[in-house]
Amino acid sequence: MKKPEFEPSEAVLSGETADIYFARTIDILRREGLNPVATMEVFASRAGMLCGMEEVKALLARVLPKDNREVWALAEGEDMDKKEVVLRIKAPYQSYGLYETAICGILAHGSGWATAARECVAAARGIPVISFGARHVHPSVAGVMDYAAMVGGCVGCSSIAGAKLAGIEAAGTMPHALIIVMGDTVKATIAFDKHMPPGVPRISLVDTFKDEAEESLRVAQVLGERLDSVRLDTPGERGGVTADLIKEVRAWLDLEGFNKVKIFVSGGLDPERITYYLEDGALVDGFGVGSYISGAKPIDFTADLHEVEGKPIAKRGRLPGITANPKLKRVM
Amino acid sequence: MKKPEFEPSEAVLSGETADIYFARTIDILRREGLNPVATMEVFASRAGMLCGMEEVKALLARVLPKDNREVWALAEGEDMDKKEVVLRIKAPYQSYGLYETAICGILAHGSGWATAARECVAAARGIPVISFGARHVHPSVAGVMDYAAMVGGCVGCSSIAGAKLAGIEAAGTMPHALIIVMGDTVKATIAFDKHMPPGVPRISLVDTFKDEAEESLRVAQVLGERLDSVRLDTPGERGGVTADLIKEVRAWLDLEGFNKVKIFVSGGLDPERITYYLEDGALVDGFGVGSYISGAKPIDFTADLHEVEGKPIAKRGRLPGITANPKLKRVM
Amino acid sequence: MKKPEFEPSEAVLSGETADIYFARTIDILRREGLNPVATMEVFASRAGMLCGMEEVKALLARVLPKDNREVWALAEGEDMDKKEVVLRIKAPYQSYGLYETAICGILAHGSGWATAARECVAAARGIPVISFGARHVHPSVAGVMDYAAMVGGCVGCSSIAGAKLAGIEAAGTMPHALIIVMGDTVKATIAFDKHMPPGVPRISLVDTFKDEAEESLRVAQVLGERLDSVRLDTPGERGGVTADLIKEVRAWLDLEGFNKVKIFVSGGLDPERITYYLEDGALVDGFGVGSYISGAKPIDFTADLHEVEGKPIAKRGRLPGITANPKLKRVM
Amino acid sequence: MKKPEFEPSEAVLSGETADIYFARTIDILRREGLNPVATMEVFASRAGMLCGMEEVKALLARVLPKDNREVWALAEGEDMDKKEVVLRIKAPYQSYGLYETAICGILAHGSGWATAARECVAAARGIPVISFGARHVHPSVAGVMDYAAMVGGCVGCSSIAGAKLAGIEAAGTMPHALIIVMGDTVKATIAFDKHMPPGVPRISLVDTFKDEAEESLRVAQVLGERLDSVRLDTPGERGGVTADLIKEVRAWLDLEGFNKVKIFVSGGLDPERITYYLEDGALVDGFGVGSYISGAKPIDFTADLHEVEGKPIAKRGRLPGITANPKLKRVM
Amino acid sequence: MKKPEFEPSEAVLSGETADIYFARTIDILRREGLNPVATMEVFASRAGMLCGMEEVKALLARVLPKDNREVWALAEGEDMDKKEVVLRIKAPYQSYGLYETAICGILAHGSGWATAARECVAAARGIPVISFGARHVHPSVAGVMDYAAMVGGCVGCSSIAGAKLAGIEAAGTMPHALIIVMGDTVKATIAFDKHMPPGVPRISLVDTFKDEAEESLRVAQVLGERLDSVRLDTPGERGGVTADLIKEVRAWLDLEGFNKVKIFVSGGLDPERITYYLEDGALVDGFGVGSYISGAKPIDFTADLHEVEGKPIAKRGRLPGITANPKLKRVM
Amino acid sequence: MKKPEFEPSEAVLSGETADIYFARTIDILRREGLNPVATMEVFASRAGMLCGMEEVKALLARVLPKDNREVWALAEGEDMDKKEVVLRIKAPYQSYGLYETAICGILAHGSGWATAARECVAAARGIPVISFGARHVHPSVAGVMDYAAMVGGCVGCSSIAGAKLAGIEAAGTMPHALIIVMGDTVKATIAFDKHMPPGVPRISLVDTFKDEAEESLRVAQVLGERLDSVRLDTPGERGGVTADLIKEVRAWLDLEGFNKVKIFVSGGLDPERITYYLEDGALVDGFGVGSYISGAKPIDFTADLHEVEGKPIAKRGRLPGITANPKLKRVM
Repeated sequence: MKKPEFEPSEAVLSGETADIYFARTIDILRREGLNPVATMEVFASRAGMLCGMEEVKALLARVLPKDNREVWALAEGEDMDKKEVVLRIKAPYQSYGLYETAICGILAHGSGWATAARECVAAARGIPVISFGARHVHPSVAGVMDYAAMVGGCVGCSSIAGAKLAGIEAAGTMPHALIIVMGDTVKATIAFDKHMPPGVPRISLVDTFKDEAEESLRVAQVLGERLDSVRLDTPGERGGVTADLIKEVRAWLDLEGFNKVKIFVSGGLDPERITYYLEDGALVDGFGVGSYISGAKPIDFTADLHEVEGKPIAKRGRLPGITANPKLKRVM
Repeated sequence: MKKPEFEPSEAVLSGETADIYFARTIDILRREGLNPVATMEVFASRAGMLCGMEEVKALLARVLPKDNREVWALAEGEDMDKKEVVLRIKAPYQSYGLYETAICGILAHGSGWATAARECVAAARGIPVISFGARHVHPSVAGVMDYAAMVGGCVGCSSIAGAKLAGIEAAGTMPHALIIVMGDTVKATIAFDKHMPPGVPRISLVDTFKDEAEESLRVAQVLGERLDSVRLDTPGERGGVTADLIKEVRAWLDLEGFNKVKIFVSGGLDPERITYYLEDGALVDGFGVGSYISGAKPIDFTADLHEVEGKPIAKRGRLPGITANPKLKRVM
Repeated sequence: MKKPEFEPSEAVLSGETADIYFARTIDILRREGLNPVATMEVFASRAGMLCGMEEVKALLARVLPKDNREVWALAEGEDMDKKEVVLRIKAPYQSYGLYETAICGILAHGSGWATAARECVAAARGIPVISFGARHVHPSVAGVMDYAAMVGGCVGCSSIAGAKLAGIEAAGTMPHALIIVMGDTVKATIAFDKHMPPGVPRISLVDTFKDEAEESLRVAQVLGERLDSVRLDTPGERGGVTADLIKEVRAWLDLEGFNKVKIFVSGGLDPERITYYLEDGALVDGFGVGSYISGAKPIDFTADLHEVEGKPIAKRGRLPGITANPKLKRVM
Repeated sequence: MKKPEFEPSEAVLSGETADIYFARTIDILRREGLNPVATMEVFASRAGMLCGMEEVKALLARVLPKDNREVWALAEGEDMDKKEVVLRIKAPYQSYGLYETAICGILAHGSGWATAARECVAAARGIPVISFGARHVHPSVAGVMDYAAMVGGCVGCSSIAGAKLAGIEAAGTMPHALIIVMGDTVKATIAFDKHMPPGVPRISLVDTFKDEAEESLRVAQVLGERLDSVRLDTPGERGGVTADLIKEVRAWLDLEGFNKVKIFVSGGLDPERITYYLEDGALVDGFGVGSYISGAKPIDFTADLHEVEGKPIAKRGRLPGITANPKLKRVM
Repeated sequence: MKKPEFEPSEAVLSGETADIYFARTIDILRREGLNPVATMEVFASRAGMLCGMEEVKALLARVLPKDNREVWALAEGEDMDKKEVVLRIKAPYQSYGLYETAICGILAHGSGWATAARECVAAARGIPVISFGARHVHPSVAGVMDYAAMVGGCVGCSSIAGAKLAGIEAAGTMPHALIIVMGDTVKATIAFDKHMPPGVPRISLVDTFKDEAEESLRVAQVLGERLDSVRLDTPGERGGVTADLIKEVRAWLDLEGFNKVKIFVSGGLDPERITYYLEDGALVDGFGVGSYISGAKPIDFTADLHEVEGKPIAKRGRLPGITANPKLKRVM
Repeated sequence: MKKPEFEPSEAVLSGETADIYFARTIDILRREGLNPVATMEVFASRAGMLCGMEEVKALLARVLPKDNREVWALAEGEDMDKKEVVLRIKAPYQSYGLYETAICGILAHGSGWATAARECVAAARGIPVISFGARHVHPSVAGVMDYAAMVGGCVGCSSIAGAKLAGIEAAGTMPHALIIVMGDTVKATIAFDKHMPPGVPRISLVDTFKDEAEESLRVAQVLGERLDSVRLDTPGERGGVTADLIKEVRAWLDLEGFNKVKIFVSGGLDPERITYYLEDGALVDGFGVGSYISGAKPIDFTADLHEVEGKPIAKRGRLPGITANPKLKRVM
């Protein structure tokens, strides 16, 4: 994955997405003529993988005065502990006070998604995981969600926007809709094969109309060597994709000589379900994970001032002065 | 709350936020010359309050052919059951197939937030609830999140973007940062009172440096009648805001004659915590709820084709043909 | 169900199936010349439906002296409480002491089966239940097990022996083996229809090779009006028979005009599973229950002497003298 | 234990104990002129000790054609895993299809009993366990139940029929009934001692009328060296046999010089209770286990065809073709 | 129960039993010349029955200045809620500050015992309960413990000291020691009957050496009409006193004509056990409860100053000023 | 801690605190002329630390005949197992039978307190624990309770009576009452410092009126080097003393140069809470534990006769004869 290029939106820069009391605070401080150099520290409410820092840095680079700023941060994708300081900003307060809402929000959502993705990737023990959850989030964050999933270890994603951020091609199979519109899985698979460029892998979705094992053999027989995979996405109403179903499809494909056709599994996956497949001995070649990643709870972040004009200070409940953290690197 | 005006973004209209396999499907169908009138139904994976439908309708109005479309939907903010059909689209498939990702995503995130907000509002038994969670979501969705919270019954929100969507003023008190920069709660409160327009309520945050009861009396003594409320946001490190703390602050304010000063509570609130305050007899005048609403899990939505060119059809696991639902109203 | 005719076996009458210490006890008492009239009472260790009493009465009629016996009993199929006396025998002890093992065993096994059957029948709320569990018990008790299931409310059973005891025809569909040997469900169904007498209902098993909905339509199309039912027995490896599968098969059958074809469900059924189908709204026309009935734990029975030659007595832990129970009827 | 000789009953051979659909299947296949060589595999639904295989082999030896049969099996008493194939039959289907019900039933009941017995024997850590549960099963299976208990490791059983199958003497003490009829434990013990052959151990049941410790000393004083054991069977109404009661009886026997008199315990025993005695330090010389063994749930077995005329096949949910299992031995 | 007369001990009056910091506080205040009229309120940490107030009032009557004191209190044995004020003292602080430790301690221990007693009495539904727990507390509090048990509803107690406080006769049966020293229950019972004055009920303890039912009949036969009760106290090592044992003893007594002999039960009793006897239908005539009452956890009490020289005040966590409680009565 | 000197009270010696049936037993035995040498053994119902033995020995020394007594015992503060014999008395029964109630009660209460204290001391890992629970017990046992707490490892106690028994100075800080009467923490601390002798450590209670961190700095600034500690006792209504509060007070004290001022914590402490502080990294210099120790459930003790005139005997449920225990030492 290449390093993404984030550009702060006008809505963020103008303060429109901020909590109004920060806008008021900047207004009051300006009228009072107060703009002390203040040090703010940001920490997470629970452990996880940090994500969103690249986007935060792009924002800070735009707003902090170049000649009076110090920024320390953990790296994108780095592990963070509960309450560990992941970002420290030292600059005139008026330059960044307005952006506390956005900074916390970017890190919260991004780290929530990346942490969930990493759990799935860990459970999959080397088998590729693809982020399929764009449909469970508002389209305005579909791209950053898929980007975070890839920071968390996914090898691909289904949304074009996410793939663009990560500088890769989006990944996909075929939707049930294509098969239903065309009326038959074999017909749809042939059309897909006919019209799609050679680089797009032929992955046929085999649970729409017929028994999965039967349909797998049907598409394998018409596409032959060109068939890359079959995808199992059996809905819960039909018992979902069981480990035994995977084994059975594998056995029939092998019995008929289609040993090279891979099996891709999706549908309600999470680390527990992935582990169940692997511990039950089902041979899976790829997992598509949806809402476990995209619907992950954001990890709340908190920002606190710890020094004002060089003097240690803190609100009740926090310790006064800079918090030591050797993992922090000076990034600005 | 006025009816919001949603405008589909270019990223959504272009299909950039879509799952790539829908883009490919449209491409294949075009090449095959297939564009049947197809009926798609959308339902939620669990019960809740529907939200996002206004934004979805704005999108459909832009993309469906005006002379060949039928759309039935439940209303924004309406109750929905698990698996109840909330939206039915009948139109040439090529006109809307690309937007399945966005439609599901808008409803998923919006309904998740609105449902969580409604739970808090129900728990609060008439006491106003304000959405304070913008800092826990990516700024690109801060506005729609706060809008959804208000659909769910919140009377206000902290983000300027959310307030704009709902056509109201954003709500806020003062951040700890203002007090820390100014070095004293009383000084910060005086500055706030001096510089803010008269319409903005004076709500002083009283847990920064001193005991909450003591600080409440200090700010009440300097602002007198102009003080609207004190806000308690005591952090967990200091035991959080207990029901007894609220009673104690109330008792001291009353003892000193400040019966009109209200108490606003925030910090880790959820329906259970709100219920605890009320059942324990603490007199609260307003609640600020953050991540319980903004970090609510999206409610997954599923879209299925049930008819193609008038013929009932379905993928395995779903019933063929239109699903009767008398609550659906024709909206297009 | 007609009243069954039980005939004590030679193994029982000879004492071969008895605990040896009863044989020794009779031997000792004979040598001591002791044969007092003794009153034995039998009770169950837990509540349930009494079954086996007819077989016990057939045994007692053979062994007790006609001129010196009194037997009181609850009726076959009657409710019994925990510790309620269900049988009282007053006769010379030597005439029946040897049969304590058999009496308790017949009642234990029979009542266990009947009680489990009744739970399934109650859960089924009027939908017929058939006992399919002969394969889970030793063939020597297949008949009495199925008889007990019918005492418990089942309307039929699969074993020929059980049906004979109850004076009815055994019930059955077709096994997977027939379909596998013939290679196709449709072929097997046609052969069944061709060779079986008209009175045997045509019930086709539709989960062997193809998707259940597809196979149901195939057999309905070839048999037409003669098809009585389709049977769903989908194994757990394929998610089992879900309520949604039943609804889907029903929907397709109705859509194609086969409203009269019934749906019969089997496979791992128990009261909880039956309740789940019914509460989820699946329309089932018959249930086949196996090991929940046939593998039911026997209900332990205990026999105690409470009077010897008219004198109240008891071992420690029991109360001396006859136990009043107005439900007992004199049967001999 | 000698190898038992099983003889298939007429009811089994005639198909009377079979599920009727197997009788119908054989009828249909005969009329269709179909009798392919088919391979059936049998596996258990959960792990345990295999029992019943000797009886199954006796049946197969009678029905399979000697010149066209292959049978592989695990040995009687061998460990089996969940879903492990324990029996494979390759022969013309008409020769054995009728017996699927009996084969599964014999293994189900037998393995259930043997597995439960083995758990008790394991818990007893070398102290002899005797099967006392004939009274909790129908007399038609009392013998095979006790046989299975001994396959599971019991050193004896109470039923004459079970002992006969295993080629040993049945084991027993004295029933409460003997003592109650004779009116006193000491009298009954003297009569037992007087009339029983020398080989029968003198085990006196000491909980009928008096305190167990007192009664133990009374019988020890009259029988002296000839007393083998006392048996404690205190009912639950009196607190059951506690570990402390055993210690107390032991202490009094030792105090009075009866160190050689053994203590035999029965009454509601199961592995947990046996473990409690041993871990609490009670010195027990023998355990009599009843319904934990005889009322054990049968282990369900399933039979599937995996090859017809040499061609791999399977119903949905099972894998086509022979299942490799190196533990299977060719037995026919 | 007559009203007890409490006399404060020298150790309490001298402050020897006080926390030292109260002694120091009085010393400091004296040296500073401070002795304001202060109002102290006392409340319990959990709901229960108030006990100890009579003893507290006896103390206050000795130490408070007669011309400058106001005391309000709940009554001995009255219900109190969690945090309800049960005592309010208004007097010069130096007169009573030293006794805060003793006041809280007397109420804590007394209310703990009385509350536990009341639970047993409630469970016993009118059957008399006697406090038997003196042996589980230090002898210095045996008397006040038994007094509190009687405030809680017990009709008697075993300690002479407790009975004296309550102005009644102590209650007792006979200890195991008497029987063991005399070697036989019947002998001990005869001796008891011979030497005790007529007013002492003859209650024979029947579980020492022989079976309880047998021993009950033995003592009934020798004492005849003079036998008041038998007492069952079977230890846990022998299964404890089960409901069935009680029924059995009752049955044998009735069978032999001793219908008037009562049954008294003791041994590990608590409300749950008492309820079990009664719901199981055992006829008990009296219960002896030990450590459930005497080992009850004290109910912690807290004392706070709420007014000093007429000015409302409070420490953090408490509300300033007098707490209204209409249940309080002026007692001094 | 020096060895305490216990003196049996008149109430104990006279038998007033005894269960009346022991008084009656002695009376009967005297009238019967029976005074055998009997051996009584005492054991606990659960494991713990033995305490009270010194007081029991003082009693026995007074009542047993010097020329005819043998007493074996475990030592004060020694570990004891469940049911382990901790005391054996061999003497004429009339000399000690009356004191069974007192002996058991002294050991029960003392061992309960000492065992609970030891759990706190173990949890505190070397940090001093002081017993603060006198206010939760009746003043008649405040001294022995605090003595037992010190046997259990506490380094001090708050009651003067307990300190006297242990031969040390009582420990204390200042009560909220002193601060409330004086109206300000700083004033109270100055007065304490002015009037108390030099040896009494200056420990200021800092949670009465102001924020704990602020108040800590205020008292540190006025007392300077003379301030020994601050005490945190924040009530539950204010969230209790959290680990974070301790860290925050420590941080502010250190930041202002008061590194030598110690922090003493109290308020609802138990082993779990102490462990939480230490595992969370809070630096505490002393713990004050109240009702966990003083409200500990007594450990029930049982006394049984095991020999009378040299002959082994026992009641049912106990083993006849002396119980071997090598840990017992002859003490008299």
